[in-house]
Amino acid sequence: MSPPAARIEALLQSLPGLDWSANSTEVKRKSLDYYWFSPILRRQLDGKLADAIVRPRNVDELREIVSACVRHNVPLTMRGGGTGNYGQAVPLDGGVVIETTALDQLVWFERGVVRAQAGIKLAVLDQFVAPHGWELRCMPSTYRMATIGGLFCGGFGGIGSITYGPLSTPGTVLGVKVMTVEAEPRILELRAPEALQHAHTYGTNGIILELEIALAPAHQWDETLLSFRDAEAAFTCVQAIAQCPGLIKKETAVFADSVVAYFKKLSAHIEAGESAAIVVINSSNRETLQSFVNTAGGRIAFQQTGAVAKATQHTLLEYCWNHTTLHALRSDKSLTYLQTSYEYGREREQLAQIEKRAGAEMLSHLEFIRDEHGRVICNGLPLVRFTTEHRLLELIDLHRECGIGVKDPHAYTLSRGSRHGAMSPASLDAKRRFDPGGLLNPGKIASQQPSGSS
Amino acid sequence: MSPPAARIEALLQSLPGLDWSANSTEVKRKSLDYYWFSPILRRQLDGKLADAIVRPRNVDELREIVSACVRHNVPLTMRGGGTGNYGQAVPLDGGVVIETTALDQLVWFERGVVRAQAGIKLAVLDQFVAPHGWELRCMPSTYRMATIGGLFCGGFGGIGSITYGPLSTPGTVLGVKVMTVEAEPRILELRAPEALQHAHTYGTNGIILELEIALAPAHQWDETLLSFRDAEAAFTCVQAIAQCPGLIKKETAVFADSVVAYFKKLSAHIEAGESAAIVVINSSNRETLQSFVNTAGGRIAFQQTGAVAKATQHTLLEYCWNHTTLHALRSDKSLTYLQTSYEYGREREQLAQIEKRAGAEMLSHLEFIRDEHGRVICNGLPLVRFTTEHRLLELIDLHRECGIGVKDPHAYTLSRGSRHGAMSPASLDAKRRFDPGGLLNPGKIASQQPSGSS
Repeated sequence: MSPPAARIEALLQSLPGLDWSANSTEVKRKSLDYYWFSPILRRQLDGKLADAIVRPRNVDELREIVSACVRHNVPLTMRGGGTGNYGQAVPLDGGVVIETTALDQLVWFERGVVRAQAGIKLAVLDQFVAPHGWELRCMPSTYRMATIGGLFCGGFGGIGSITYGPLSTPGTVLGVKVMTVEAEPRILELRAPEALQHAHTYGTNGIILELEIALAPAHQWDETLLSFRDAEAAFTCVQAIAQCPGLIKKETAVFADSVVAYFKKLSAHIEAGESAAIVVINSSNRETLQSFVNTAGGRIAFQQTGAVAKATQHTLLEYCWNHTTLHALRSDKSLTYLQTSYEYGREREQLAQIEKRAGAEMLSHLEFIRDEHGRVICNGLPLVRFTTEHRLLELIDLHRECGIGVKDPHAYTLSRGSRHGAMSPASLDAKRRFDPGGLLNPGKIASQQPSGSS
Repeated sequence: MSPPAARIEALLQSLPGLDWSANSTEVKRKSLDYYWFSPILRRQLDGKLADAIVRPRNVDELREIVSACVRHNVPLTMRGGGTGNYGQAVPLDGGVVIETTALDQLVWFERGVVRAQAGIKLAVLDQFVAPHGWELRCMPSTYRMATIGGLFCGGFGGIGSITYGPLSTPGTVLGVKVMTVEAEPRILELRAPEALQHAHTYGTNGIILELEIALAPAHQWDETLLSFRDAEAAFTCVQAIAQCPGLIKKETAVFADSVVAYFKKLSAHIEAGESAAIVVINSSNRETLQSFVNTAGGRIAFQQTGAVAKATQHTLLEYCWNHTTLHALRSDKSLTYLQTSYEYGREREQLAQIEKRAGAEMLSHLEFIRDEHGRVICNGLPLVRFTTEHRLLELIDLHRECGIGVKDPHAYTLSRGSRHGAMSPASLDAKRRFDPGGLLNPGKIASQQPSGSS
């Protein structure tokens, strides 16, 4: 169903002044994201290519492209930094990939709130607000490359979510400006909560131009690598830190010994067999942190200030969330991963159950966050020793049998009721309003496919 | 068992240069706190008087007083602002009341941490750190009069506890300097967690000289009075606000219509029969707050910025916590109150149960806070229409039968295992070390009394 080459050709010729890439290396590179973390997605998405990549330099250019795509009936797929893991930015049916990274202007910044174009990199935005005493409430470990629009459309949160929850928590995204995919594109300002209907929908229900987000007060942070004699001690200690309202937190993650072994630059600090944790808390509570660690019989294996981390460009934040996965997969191509969430209050029990049933194939990586009810819950990004697709799906089922939630990172479609993508009826309604022709990466919304696969 | 007048006389004469009050009005005024909120405590404590009040001007003077009290075997009772509600500062056996309010110096302040003498008023401390972008993590509604030492020794937390928990949450009090009650008083620096053994012990296990506390980043706050058609809508809305990690909060309280009626200066904003709430959240989330209120079918009855509140000296914070009780008792002397805590996850059920069993005698006032596990829990300071002491104790039992925790505000003693005062074995051990002669307000620790009453 890819558009005939003639249509693409006509489209390109109708907008000769734009920043197109038709170079095959570039097209290939910009047609993919980190979907290769998943062997299933590799099989399904390898070879999916855009016909052309375009990088609009401003909103007028973007509008011209959208209008032309509609008139030529060419699919379009939005792409930020390309750091998603589930093919969020992979064009399923060719067409044009629109890279938003030149739409990177700060629109305004007032005490505690910033408005920026969707293509601004998170690290750039964070650096802009930092001197004024503010920082982003949450961001993925890929914040150097990832854009705010990409985080909103295809991401979750991550670093900072232990305090502020995921990005989609009410109160963080205050508004978005969205362009419709029509011959005469319209631009609408949506305020929260309506704005959140566009969150985590992989850019399928309109083109996000700007986001207005509430910030967090900046703190002086200590980045600390902790080590413990075993996984139980690590979990107990980091859960207590994560729960304690007297510690101001940015990150709380726990890693099995087998996972830390992949952190080449950190491995000198950890003895073989030790479990580890990374916690980033306010520097004024350094002594409090030490007392939590003492109680658990752990030790501070390495500690640096956030300022040193910035200066050396070596931050412990880039060992957390999907950077954990990235470090491991770079060393061992046979690994893949899952995204899990444990039931509040039953975390230990469920972790013990799954350890017993699937232990040898799983390498534990846990992340604490606050959920929409303000509870400190435990999520996981366990590494999995991949054997077959069948076994991988079986492992997902095993988790679900233990009552553990799985947001399947081996599926690339959004579907209604999925725990992965959130296509609520309101999101589907927004899809119809903002993309009436269904040109935004067709095939991405499972429930809108004729085949109806979920 | 009061010390013979001769001993007191000898003590006064041995320290002629100090700031003594033997004036009977002054002695009476400085021998009491807000214990009169409780009819039981009125009966038990009315008439308990110090023999003399002294206000040391510096630590050397304090040391002289303590030394002299030990040598003359005269009891001493510590007093901050006198804003406690359970006779924390009432001398049970006469002797000297030491008022700490002249020991009010700021010792040092570094980004995010402040060290001050125990007698500094909370409002003064808060005003000092505010221009630097910081504020107190938590404070009682009596912050204008209350001291940091009084909060630590006899208080709980209050405003701000919805984010940072009670003052005794690990990470907030980092250290204390304590003077022993000995003929040659020693001064010791204790760091947390050991320092916390002196929290909420009513000054019975040593004399707190200085506290070192971690601060919170200051925010621009909106103070908002909300109104709702009924109690259920108010509870639902404010619980959702309290739980949401995307809203930065300082205060979240819910009041029955019958309670709001006592808020004279606010009553014009609330219709008869409406339930009300006071929420203080970051100004950048004003729109988010409005959407929570809309969802619940409520309305914003009155709103002002924290800056306006400061300028006009009329803040909604002074309708919350025990200021609610104060406003009501000023109007209606027949009222008293309880201190309750509902089980996490069973709040509605327990509130409905107690409403059914004791509704007519109780006027609901709820406060949300974060507990030591980071959970958003619901506490209560319900007003009670007092009839008899027997019935009041019965109401406490009724609550406990419903599984509702009661910290009995009608008891003035500390006892081991009590839910009210926290005399842990470690606290009792500290008592023996820091006050070996048992001179600090004898009778306050029930388990140390020969009579053994609890």
